[in-house]
Amino acid sequence: MGIVMGPNQYGKAEVHLVAVDRSTPRHSIKDLTVSSALRGDLDAAHLTGDNSNVLPTDTQKNTAFAFAKKHGVGEIEDFALRLGRHFTSTAEGIDGARILVEEAGWQRIPVDGEGHDHSFSRTGEEKRTTAVTIDGDRAHVVSGLKDLVVLKSTGSEFWGYPKDEYTTLPETDDRILATAVSARWRYRHTDVDWGKSFEDIRASLMQAFATTHSLALQQSLYAMGKAALESHPELAEVRLSLPNKHHFLVDLSYCGLENDNEVFYAADRPYGLIEGTVKRDDVEDEPMAWYTTPEF
Amino acid sequence: MGIVMGPNQYGKAEVHLVAVDRSTPRHSIKDLTVSSALRGDLDAAHLTGDNSNVLPTDTQKNTAFAFAKKHGVGEIEDFALRLGRHFTSTAEGIDGARILVEEAGWQRIPVDGEGHDHSFSRTGEEKRTTAVTIDGDRAHVVSGLKDLVVLKSTGSEFWGYPKDEYTTLPETDDRILATAVSARWRYRHTDVDWGKSFEDIRASLMQAFATTHSLALQQSLYAMGKAALESHPELAEVRLSLPNKHHFLVDLSYCGLENDNEVFYAADRPYGLIEGTVKRDDVEDEPMAWYTTPEF
Amino acid sequence: MGIVMGPNQYGKAEVHLVAVDRSTPRHSIKDLTVSSALRGDLDAAHLTGDNSNVLPTDTQKNTAFAFAKKHGVGEIEDFALRLGRHFTSTAEGIDGARILVEEAGWQRIPVDGEGHDHSFSRTGEEKRTTAVTIDGDRAHVVSGLKDLVVLKSTGSEFWGYPKDEYTTLPETDDRILATAVSARWRYRHTDVDWGKSFEDIRASLMQAFATTHSLALQQSLYAMGKAALESHPELAEVRLSLPNKHHFLVDLSYCGLENDNEVFYAADRPYGLIEGTVKRDDVEDEPMAWYTTPEF
Amino acid sequence: MGIVMGPNQYGKAEVHLVAVDRSTPRHSIKDLTVSSALRGDLDAAHLTGDNSNVLPTDTQKNTAFAFAKKHGVGEIEDFALRLGRHFTSTAEGIDGARILVEEAGWQRIPVDGEGHDHSFSRTGEEKRTTAVTIDGDRAHVVSGLKDLVVLKSTGSEFWGYPKDEYTTLPETDDRILATAVSARWRYRHTDVDWGKSFEDIRASLMQAFATTHSLALQQSLYAMGKAALESHPELAEVRLSLPNKHHFLVDLSYCGLENDNEVFYAADRPYGLIEGTVKRDDVEDEPMAWYTTPEF
Repeated sequence: MGIVMGPNQYGKAEVHLVAVDRSTPRHSIKDLTVSSALRGDLDAAHLTGDNSNVLPTDTQKNTAFAFAKKHGVGEIEDFALRLGRHFTSTAEGIDGARILVEEAGWQRIPVDGEGHDHSFSRTGEEKRTTAVTIDGDRAHVVSGLKDLVVLKSTGSEFWGYPKDEYTTLPETDDRILATAVSARWRYRHTDVDWGKSFEDIRASLMQAFATTHSLALQQSLYAMGKAALESHPELAEVRLSLPNKHHFLVDLSYCGLENDNEVFYAADRPYGLIEGTVKRDDVEDEPMAWYTTPEF
Repeated sequence: MGIVMGPNQYGKAEVHLVAVDRSTPRHSIKDLTVSSALRGDLDAAHLTGDNSNVLPTDTQKNTAFAFAKKHGVGEIEDFALRLGRHFTSTAEGIDGARILVEEAGWQRIPVDGEGHDHSFSRTGEEKRTTAVTIDGDRAHVVSGLKDLVVLKSTGSEFWGYPKDEYTTLPETDDRILATAVSARWRYRHTDVDWGKSFEDIRASLMQAFATTHSLALQQSLYAMGKAALESHPELAEVRLSLPNKHHFLVDLSYCGLENDNEVFYAADRPYGLIEGTVKRDDVEDEPMAWYTTPEF
Repeated sequence: MGIVMGPNQYGKAEVHLVAVDRSTPRHSIKDLTVSSALRGDLDAAHLTGDNSNVLPTDTQKNTAFAFAKKHGVGEIEDFALRLGRHFTSTAEGIDGARILVEEAGWQRIPVDGEGHDHSFSRTGEEKRTTAVTIDGDRAHVVSGLKDLVVLKSTGSEFWGYPKDEYTTLPETDDRILATAVSARWRYRHTDVDWGKSFEDIRASLMQAFATTHSLALQQSLYAMGKAALESHPELAEVRLSLPNKHHFLVDLSYCGLENDNEVFYAADRPYGLIEGTVKRDDVEDEPMAWYTTPEF
Repeated sequence: MGIVMGPNQYGKAEVHLVAVDRSTPRHSIKDLTVSSALRGDLDAAHLTGDNSNVLPTDTQKNTAFAFAKKHGVGEIEDFALRLGRHFTSTAEGIDGARILVEEAGWQRIPVDGEGHDHSFSRTGEEKRTTAVTIDGDRAHVVSGLKDLVVLKSTGSEFWGYPKDEYTTLPETDDRILATAVSARWRYRHTDVDWGKSFEDIRASLMQAFATTHSLALQQSLYAMGKAALESHPELAEVRLSLPNKHHFLVDLSYCGLENDNEVFYAADRPYGLIEGTVKRDDVEDEPMAWYTTPEF
């Protein structure tokens, strides 16, 4: 019996890179947070501190900045693929890489009804994401979004669930349904118009959330994943993590008032958490594409 | 010599209240976080634990919920004035109140090009704020916004500053200027169309930030405050707290690339912090209006 | 071709439960944050909103509170096993459960040199954790700790790494090494003195970090995992996630001072991130034990 | 009527500085987060962008690092006084400064029962703080602590408060009392053994919290401030901000269990917030000492 190294990776996390396209006086900006991780023949580093295969995380960071200048940023999926393939093709002993990118949005500040040339404001806390995995000759792309906070003020019910001695929740045919959507979708290949695909999928998810009369947050989850898959043949599967951000109806009987689904207390914790995968039944699983992504 | 109580207040902080207007099938929502604090004859509570003047913080919370139903929410300034005046006029021994409200924004989810009737998404991390102080018969309103993140990709310089033995910063005639605006403005009276005033002031601040060619973040601060005051006679003063969110130009000479203000590293900490008041020279200060507000 | 549900789970997250043992005047407290997730025959909930197998997350929360009273809290592993087995054995259609528990520490406030009977202070941000998975008849226990922040002010080197055109990092034979340890270890069975095992493993990890002269954070990681495994036959594997919290030596040459590893700038982001598994070579992998745990 | 600049300041915030004393092989470390702000003749910077009096925030940061090497760190009050006086005595047009310092604690990692020479672990989230204000020739020192989380599992009551139509809270003669102490105390002069004073005051505050049978959190607040003042003639006043971190007794009657103050749900928001000043009646107020400190 011996003690050995199992799976491992290392890299630089959360490099906050902002790139300005100044090719015309009407600037545009890209705001990325990039994390890289490399995998390969790294036993010697762990066992004896021999760093001959350890491309420093500082160099990984420098490479991200240099690539932003050399090749431009473009779509985050292309940026991540380029970076990951660079590492696996040039770094000694490295045959795997995972590149995570989060993109924050910016919009032009309106001045006299027109968007300004070089002044911007942040669009919100929502982020566009990608997790690219290079595994030898293969490349997997799992893109997504997170922190898209949505709410339905009606059109949501919850009843028909099992009761036991610990049940106190009353059934309801009208409640607020609110969640912060984290979605990730796996692409079947890399021949994709990434920006357009992202915008369309995002719109599908929101529209499905809005228009589904919901008997369970699970039902909304499935409807969202199904909508994205049906309209996007380039997708293999969609994973959604949906916290049920509880809005409790306040009992105002203490002062003789009725509360007809009008005034709610929005709680932080605890929250429900509904997580699930919606997928095509004819595509193979690719566990490596999801390996170590930080959410369900 | 003795030991005595000095200034004090107590209340309930961060009541997250969501109200739905269901008067028509086209719902609208208000999302407030409310903090109340009461002041007055509270020595006995501190000295002997005699709570006869201590309206419980739980009751303060209940009152906020009840008022949302009874009187509606409306503009946050009106909501806060109503709540503060209620406490000072009804609670034994209480003659002062400070009500803080933060409002989060929501927009309708577009479905087939139309905003949905009862499905919404959060607009971002920016919050509209008010701090209302009731001091006996007087009422002060200090409204504002926070976490409005803005950036200029050019049109900002910084030079002409004093140098000493600790100086390493090079002068520049072109840099990124980025900040997260926290602004608070004091109204001269309460006869104000709060919603319209807020929207106009916010637009003034953003437009001034965008159009000021900036030689110092201080200059942008003054321009922003001045713009708000000039177009809004109802304002006495504007206080701004502007973190200078540094974007450092990455030196890419390590790999032989020039970086002509294109690729930046966005740092979290440390950051510059520029804070200042812009005011009319003919209005009196009102320290009580600002007493214990959490920002400069 | 069709669209179907893949893996999924749902539950209540972050139930903050504090239990007081009042059996003697010398109280003790347990401070847990509990998240439960159930798995099983849940297609109907997703496809049609049929909740007949959906034990509400509210009921899951109620059960956690009731079990704390009924059976006591005890060690977090026992609490989680009890809760998980209850759900899989009593809830219709549910055959899997994952229970996460984080425990915060409290110590007695010293009064005249003695720990007080019923007054306590929090010990720090470090948490003891467990992730228990019930999978049909099997139970997996993965315990650990997180946010244990440690630092070596010397005894750490980094050199001998590959250089390329993006390299700027100088080699060093003396640097600060600092990290926030997240560790998880998988038990081979459940016949364990959980509290003692935790304390011993924690001490092993810290002692290995302290006494390893480190040529790479990877080497420290392996030494830590090895130390835990060697002294604890009940463990199958240890997974560590170690952010390299960079402390950059400040170049004080601007004012003519030498800085002999004395004054450092501690950076937040980016940071290195070293993640790895140390394991016995004669035990089988158990992917289900790790399924959806939120860290590497 | 004109628009003018009112009070303002600018500086560098949150410089995270770690200093190692390597004068013997038994190292010690200081972990400070330093924020400086300068005040003075800064109208030109605001009105026209003339930076001749604007010592860059980057230089302020460099000075903090250089001073840590040149003069050592020592006690945070001395470090802040040194830094503040340097700026007001050397920077053109600057006659005021405020230096905030937060110190994080570290302890030696035990190895075979002995604290290690150069390996440390963080003691917790609690911070020791100081806010030093230089105002011309005067210096004010306001020191304190924050995020000291304490809890009494009994010995706390709350009753005898006024009731109105919005009251629902039941009176209680036994509840959990928990808070995260933020305390600031103003020194009457600067001839103080800062380290010893801090340790003694911290112990006074905790002991008073522990031993006060509390009828209101206000009563605990006063007892804490009084204890610190009585044993420390060097103090003029103590300000405390005490969130009432509610622990709600869980009603377990749903499953037929009695809950005799044993199982609680610990809520995050909303929370009570009790803020107050305890002071000597024969010392003068010094508003400038508190000007712009971020807490009550």
